[in-house]
Amino acid sequence: MLYLVGLGLADETDITVKGLEIVKKAERVYLEAYTSILLVDTAKLVCTSKLDPHPLANLLGLKEEFYGRPVIVADREMVESSSDEILHNADRVDVAFLVVGDPFGCVTTSHHTTLTLRVRSGFSTNDIMISFYRATTHTDLVLRARELGIEMRNIPNASIMSAIGCTGLQLYSFGQTVSMVFFTETWKPSSYYDRIKQNAEHGLHTLVLLDIKVKEQSLENMARGRKIYEPPRYMTVAQCAEQMLETEAERKEGICGPESLAIGAARVGAVDQQLVVGTLKELTKVDLGKPLHSLVLLGTKTHELERDYIRRFAVDTATFDHIWKKHYEAKS
Amino acid sequence: MLYLVGLGLADETDITVKGLEIVKKAERVYLEAYTSILLVDTAKLVCTSKLDPHPLANLLGLKEEFYGRPVIVADREMVESSSDEILHNADRVDVAFLVVGDPFGCVTTSHHTTLTLRVRSGFSTNDIMISFYRATTHTDLVLRARELGIEMRNIPNASIMSAIGCTGLQLYSFGQTVSMVFFTETWKPSSYYDRIKQNAEHGLHTLVLLDIKVKEQSLENMARGRKIYEPPRYMTVAQCAEQMLETEAERKEGICGPESLAIGAARVGAVDQQLVVGTLKELTKVDLGKPLHSLVLLGTKTHELERDYIRRFAVDTATFDHIWKKHYEAKS
Repeated sequence: MLYLVGLGLADETDITVKGLEIVKKAERVYLEAYTSILLVDTAKLVCTSKLDPHPLANLLGLKEEFYGRPVIVADREMVESSSDEILHNADRVDVAFLVVGDPFGCVTTSHHTTLTLRVRSGFSTNDIMISFYRATTHTDLVLRARELGIEMRNIPNASIMSAIGCTGLQLYSFGQTVSMVFFTETWKPSSYYDRIKQNAEHGLHTLVLLDIKVKEQSLENMARGRKIYEPPRYMTVAQCAEQMLETEAERKEGICGPESLAIGAARVGAVDQQLVVGTLKELTKVDLGKPLHSLVLLGTKTHELERDYIRRFAVDTATFDHIWKKHYEAKS
Repeated sequence: MLYLVGLGLADETDITVKGLEIVKKAERVYLEAYTSILLVDTAKLVCTSKLDPHPLANLLGLKEEFYGRPVIVADREMVESSSDEILHNADRVDVAFLVVGDPFGCVTTSHHTTLTLRVRSGFSTNDIMISFYRATTHTDLVLRARELGIEMRNIPNASIMSAIGCTGLQLYSFGQTVSMVFFTETWKPSSYYDRIKQNAEHGLHTLVLLDIKVKEQSLENMARGRKIYEPPRYMTVAQCAEQMLETEAERKEGICGPESLAIGAARVGAVDQQLVVGTLKELTKVDLGKPLHSLVLLGTKTHELERDYIRRFAVDTATFDHIWKKHYEAKS
């Protein structure tokens, strides 16, 4: 049996009792280590697999002692190219595949694989980045398991998609979720803007998931085939707000301007969870500390009870009240 | 400290390790018992509170022995009228408030409180049902805690909002979630249809949460002030599909007709989780067994990888392929 086990959002104690029992009994335990991270960074993961200790091990912070089992860190490369190794014998023994959040939850932008090509033409060198849609690798893994006649069971857990309800906003009032990638000088994709616009037309909130870059190679290392990876990068609420204003300045359709209200959320579900409400302009100045961050752009259908709930998180209450009256009140 | 602890979706082992630790240490433990249910019905809950054993206790199936603590079942009445009792002393001691799913997740339609009035006019007696919006009571409880200067911490868990990803559909491709209430002869609200239409315009999927009626009084018992409750009712996928076709027959905008594809999901996260894919007409005939059920109406933007994943759950593969070609293929 292949078990996909959700780990939840904050630390190693967010696994469910059911999930932990499965991990303890499984023949092999893999940890998917590239679509998200847990928020602990003190514990050290001891790898007993043939793989070297993973550079993300500390960040992932899964304590082998806690789970009582050796955990094999599965990076993107391994899951994509060695799925049969992961699934080996899984028709006879139990294999647990651990995923931060919910196994089928929204992964961050990592699943919009970004391919960077350096093109030299004439005198200039340009980076051309191509983002193409692909299924989350977990779905791939399940499809492959099916082909091999291996049964699968899913142990759900918290995902940012529902945990964002901790903002006090009604989940019924969210439209489609979008993701925000790191802009570069030459690549500033704005398709997210169209989707936010579709939500805004009906007054709906939009959850924006922020880019994570883990285990990315520099162009030089990639070209030379050197498996040396750049330090991980996590987009902040301030960076996201900045990029949204940049797109708005270009598109000018009034979807996410300096006076649009948004909520910045950091480390949802952790002891030091932090929420802050303000205009996008205000949010470009906030520092919400360590990753992971998310952002919610407020819809005009925001209910007064939602306003009451979020108001206490305002960067500046006077500004919040002023902007609320000007753009949101009586629009719901 | 007030702890809002999510219990997850299926049974008592879906609580997180962190949540369980809190339950064990808390001075008092309440279980919110009216917006959803766990899927176990064998274990018996022993109430040691001053309240009588609750009629829902068996259904909720929370084993006192498992959590190692007496649990006070808090029904809607208690949470709404006795929140100060729940919060008593919580500035000095720890109080845990357990919620099925995620504490801030979407509750089912129960939070659209339905008020039934029997009106006698002339010769006929009509039931007039009024549905009015209210905040989820958990938000109310947090707001009240704030007023009393009580700190709150939230322990997230799986919610149907993200666990529905187990269908293989991309959560990025869902629009707003809607809820479906039990129609009566005189009350068939169709506002959900407008929201599905908004999603459909952009090719998005819609998650439909199905009505739960627990601890409802008959009109007679309500009028006489007798606290006798009707047996609980849970809407099935077949009933939901039936009602959607009924609304479509009236509205005729081609949003959810007999050839619209949908996924029925039952007992998500449980060992006997069941998924079935078919046209709404086909789904009116399926029996997915015990509660809880949910339904996803497929958007036309459905990706081919999503199709590959869901096809194996088809009621009839030939019909699925035919309808897919006719209405969905190449629309994404």
